[in-house]
Amino acid sequence: MVEAVETMDGWYSLHDLRSIDWNAWKLATEEERKQAIDSLHKLLDKWEAVEEAKDGSQVLYKVLGQKADLMFMFLRPTMDELSEMETELSKSKMGEFLLPAHSYVSVVELSKYRESKDGIDPETLPETQARLKPILPKWEYICFYPMDRRRQGDENWYTLEKNVRAKMLYEHSKTGRKYAGKVKQIITGSIGLDDWEWGVTLFAHEPLEFKKIVYEMRFDEVSSKYGEFGEFFVGNHLPKEHLRTYLSI
Amino acid sequence: MVEAVETMDGWYSLHDLRSIDWNAWKLATEEERKQAIDSLHKLLDKWEAVEEAKDGSQVLYKVLGQKADLMFMFLRPTMDELSEMETELSKSKMGEFLLPAHSYVSVVELSKYRESKDGIDPETLPETQARLKPILPKWEYICFYPMDRRRQGDENWYTLEKNVRAKMLYEHSKTGRKYAGKVKQIITGSIGLDDWEWGVTLFAHEPLEFKKIVYEMRFDEVSSKYGEFGEFFVGNHLPKEHLRTYLSI
Amino acid sequence: MVEAVETMDGWYSLHDLRSIDWNAWKLATEEERKQAIDSLHKLLDKWEAVEEAKDGSQVLYKVLGQKADLMFMFLRPTMDELSEMETELSKSKMGEFLLPAHSYVSVVELSKYRESKDGIDPETLPETQARLKPILPKWEYICFYPMDRRRQGDENWYTLEKNVRAKMLYEHSKTGRKYAGKVKQIITGSIGLDDWEWGVTLFAHEPLEFKKIVYEMRFDEVSSKYGEFGEFFVGNHLPKEHLRTYLSI
Amino acid sequence: MVEAVETMDGWYSLHDLRSIDWNAWKLATEEERKQAIDSLHKLLDKWEAVEEAKDGSQVLYKVLGQKADLMFMFLRPTMDELSEMETELSKSKMGEFLLPAHSYVSVVELSKYRESKDGIDPETLPETQARLKPILPKWEYICFYPMDRRRQGDENWYTLEKNVRAKMLYEHSKTGRKYAGKVKQIITGSIGLDDWEWGVTLFAHEPLEFKKIVYEMRFDEVSSKYGEFGEFFVGNHLPKEHLRTYLSI
Amino acid sequence: MVEAVETMDGWYSLHDLRSIDWNAWKLATEEERKQAIDSLHKLLDKWEAVEEAKDGSQVLYKVLGQKADLMFMFLRPTMDELSEMETELSKSKMGEFLLPAHSYVSVVELSKYRESKDGIDPETLPETQARLKPILPKWEYICFYPMDRRRQGDENWYTLEKNVRAKMLYEHSKTGRKYAGKVKQIITGSIGLDDWEWGVTLFAHEPLEFKKIVYEMRFDEVSSKYGEFGEFFVGNHLPKEHLRTYLSI
Repeated sequence: MVEAVETMDGWYSLHDLRSIDWNAWKLATEEERKQAIDSLHKLLDKWEAVEEAKDGSQVLYKVLGQKADLMFMFLRPTMDELSEMETELSKSKMGEFLLPAHSYVSVVELSKYRESKDGIDPETLPETQARLKPILPKWEYICFYPMDRRRQGDENWYTLEKNVRAKMLYEHSKTGRKYAGKVKQIITGSIGLDDWEWGVTLFAHEPLEFKKIVYEMRFDEVSSKYGEFGEFFVGNHLPKEHLRTYLSI
Repeated sequence: MVEAVETMDGWYSLHDLRSIDWNAWKLATEEERKQAIDSLHKLLDKWEAVEEAKDGSQVLYKVLGQKADLMFMFLRPTMDELSEMETELSKSKMGEFLLPAHSYVSVVELSKYRESKDGIDPETLPETQARLKPILPKWEYICFYPMDRRRQGDENWYTLEKNVRAKMLYEHSKTGRKYAGKVKQIITGSIGLDDWEWGVTLFAHEPLEFKKIVYEMRFDEVSSKYGEFGEFFVGNHLPKEHLRTYLSI
Repeated sequence: MVEAVETMDGWYSLHDLRSIDWNAWKLATEEERKQAIDSLHKLLDKWEAVEEAKDGSQVLYKVLGQKADLMFMFLRPTMDELSEMETELSKSKMGEFLLPAHSYVSVVELSKYRESKDGIDPETLPETQARLKPILPKWEYICFYPMDRRRQGDENWYTLEKNVRAKMLYEHSKTGRKYAGKVKQIITGSIGLDDWEWGVTLFAHEPLEFKKIVYEMRFDEVSSKYGEFGEFFVGNHLPKEHLRTYLSI
Repeated sequence: MVEAVETMDGWYSLHDLRSIDWNAWKLATEEERKQAIDSLHKLLDKWEAVEEAKDGSQVLYKVLGQKADLMFMFLRPTMDELSEMETELSKSKMGEFLLPAHSYVSVVELSKYRESKDGIDPETLPETQARLKPILPKWEYICFYPMDRRRQGDENWYTLEKNVRAKMLYEHSKTGRKYAGKVKQIITGSIGLDDWEWGVTLFAHEPLEFKKIVYEMRFDEVSSKYGEFGEFFVGNHLPKEHLRTYLSI
Repeated sequence: MVEAVETMDGWYSLHDLRSIDWNAWKLATEEERKQAIDSLHKLLDKWEAVEEAKDGSQVLYKVLGQKADLMFMFLRPTMDELSEMETELSKSKMGEFLLPAHSYVSVVELSKYRESKDGIDPETLPETQARLKPILPKWEYICFYPMDRRRQGDENWYTLEKNVRAKMLYEHSKTGRKYAGKVKQIITGSIGLDDWEWGVTLFAHEPLEFKKIVYEMRFDEVSSKYGEFGEFFVGNHLPKEHLRTYLSI
């Protein structure tokens, strides 16, 4: 049947990308720069406490190239908390040296394409809950891109029978599974929340794995015929301890 | 027959999205910031009086992500009043700290796809009038996006018979009705007024409902084959009482 | 036969849209603002004299929404005069508070799809000349948008026989004629002059008429299959007498 | 056969469009403005000497509308000279009041679709050399736009046999020839050099001729089915003698 | 079989394009400009030492036209080093006069479409290693553009059998080989790393060769039916010794 598949939804997500205004940064006094770095440290500490309490998660990466300098990915149980995090970053002393670059609003999503085998609602399983409210890995590299399912003439995802879609997605997941341990993937749904239908966030120890997995997957029918892709952002992990070095001038 | 369906049209609508210039805001004196917040309060009070008199309606939300910080939605009987509201916001002290982000011009619209049963013109009914001149809900979350009906090769809404369109829209409305009480929807027409053909404004108590309804609707033929969607904006309600806190630094 | 139809061409046209830099405007001294308004008044007076002499025409509207604040539409016998008007506006004291927002270059155009009946060249008729060199109405509302005729696969306007195109345009004109007295339309050609093929400028006493006419026309085959539409700008008339009030702060 | 046709290539071309920062211009002192105009005069004189020696050519036009204020078109034997001209304009005193608006890189091109009749290589003919290294006309009006040949499904220029392309281009050239004396056309190739495949620069004594020729040509199969067009820029000639008047405030 | 072909991957690549803020440059003191040029010299020296040690490579070109002024292309074994190079350029004194213009992230790539003949893994061959970790030529001209393989209806690269793709690419490579000695080409893969699937960087002694090779290749089936091309950037080599002259005012 041509129908929506039920989804399981977890924490809300905000990808918040900012560029550093290096000229303003250099014009600032040593004292101001110290205050700015301290203000960001303070936010990071506060957010870490939330993560430790498993009430949310976040990561910070340096974006390669000129699309942005910093990428924050925030996960929280409510959109209100995400709004607050975005605002407190803007209001912080560090915020005075950050320019808006890009953002993406979505929610961690798993689909229920497969039947539950034994009458157990998969959403009630602890492993499902862990995937819906994931503590984000702090791996060396990140890749983020949004995507749509095509709706064009004969290639219209939304006019396909549910089982046809399920089969294609299952094949696709097999490609993904080859990268277990090398690439960690978080799918977030954004229909009705942002300009594309899904966000894909990948983590890896080697950026080459991003190319390998996305390239291999592009030959899966679900991508070759039904995938439309947006902008790609890649970055290097920026641990709190490296912040001062990264920003030193 | 391939022909336009008559519409019933109510209040004119302006979605007015602005970004806050946080750096300018922080550089301002405490006194200036106070004046700015007061100026916005004064406008909100004035506009509320209009709403109480049922001569218009408006809402204010904080937009999540970097597309904007604030989304005003204004409804008024004339475009002149909307123009005045936009201008007085720009001229206000608060306006000095707001940057243009996005806007959308439209008019509340209901279509007459269905025949009146008993010879009564539906436009004369009080419930129709209430829908054409709606007092906007102040629910926790808002979602706004513009859309077109497709005109491409075999998927051309404007070459379909009126009754075929009516049937698809009727099926679509059934999906919508499942969300009664969860999602409130205002359709505004913008053909000849702005870049897309319609604006869709949704209100909900949970942002997840935006994803659920838009996702489910995307499988309706009217969307899967004939829907083209623009940018999505989502936001948290910003009641007047929270303004000072939101803007405090 | 597949061939271009001859056109009759009148005055050159420049749509000149500007945004007001409200912050600069507020930072200016009372004296500077007075000088600026005076400088615009002076230009408007000078241009009015040209209109009175029937050597051109122009209008000024306030644009609703953030695409611009002011829309000037200038008509003159030569492109040189349009260039001069644009430049003198930029050089004026008022120009210091205006930011470029959008512009469109075209020329008033009538097509000769229909045969002259009695051997009289329609271009020689006084009513044709009046339509080619029109004194623009100062009606309450304006709507401007550019458009193309589609050239895609089976929907290619430029591969249709001339009489097929003529028939579709004739049907289209009948839709237009229903709005006589309610909507006044000026068609300007811009192939070879600007990014779209035609500009459409509509004037009305009620902005709802813009939606009604453009919506109804969209079902005409010439639009449903062969129309591609650009950005829409709508505005309220700004008579010279209201300028001071509009700009007062 | 489906194969590239050989081209004959002449001088390299740079269309360099700039906007005038009128506010900065007005804030400058009378002395600074004088220095700026002098610096531009000096460049124009220097470049004229090159043109007189037939080592290159250039023109300067005022662009109508807000896409730019000035359009320079530079022709030189090497890309190095073009780079130097662009840089010396940026470095000049006048350059301080110019904002980047648009640019286009290409090379004057003639195609060898037709066989040489008598074994003479057309590239060796003096008239060919004159067309490859043209002294640009200083006619009253200019029109510049870039274009591609379509590569879409059944309308793919690059899968057509060479003789089929040749025939279409020959028909097209007949349309062009009707405008002899009214429109002068320079074709520049930009595959591998800029974002479109060709640039078209037209000169005329009446801007209406731009509309007439581009409109009529659009019905030629080579355009109706295989033409994709970019932005159009039109302008009025700005002779060196008028520079001071144009820039006076 | 429809499947991804294995790739061999070498150094990571960052194309880093910047515009010079000529006004800021002129406003700076002679001393500041000297410091800025010295800071860039120092970086170039440092990077050269890396190249001499064969631990990476880089080039610097002046971009023609307004898309940028400078194009750096950096190759390094890790993305971390690229991130550091980008950051140290931004932090340098010269960086204060550079504006972000464009960037592209990719990795040097060779595909394994052809079988190894004698059981030798081509990746182990010294000539393969040299191509994967190339010392970039310092030829007079550079051309950079990104590209995709088409995925549209019947023209879908990703649904073609591997041997069909291999055959088309082999034909394509024959066109390329005609330009041996005239054009040097570096292919970098960017699926999962940036917005397009591949980057193409060409070096030549004559910019005309860029047009010739890209034009001729466009008739190869792999391009005419399956190529989608992005922005093109061309530039003149800027050797370190010319830096002072180029930046002198």
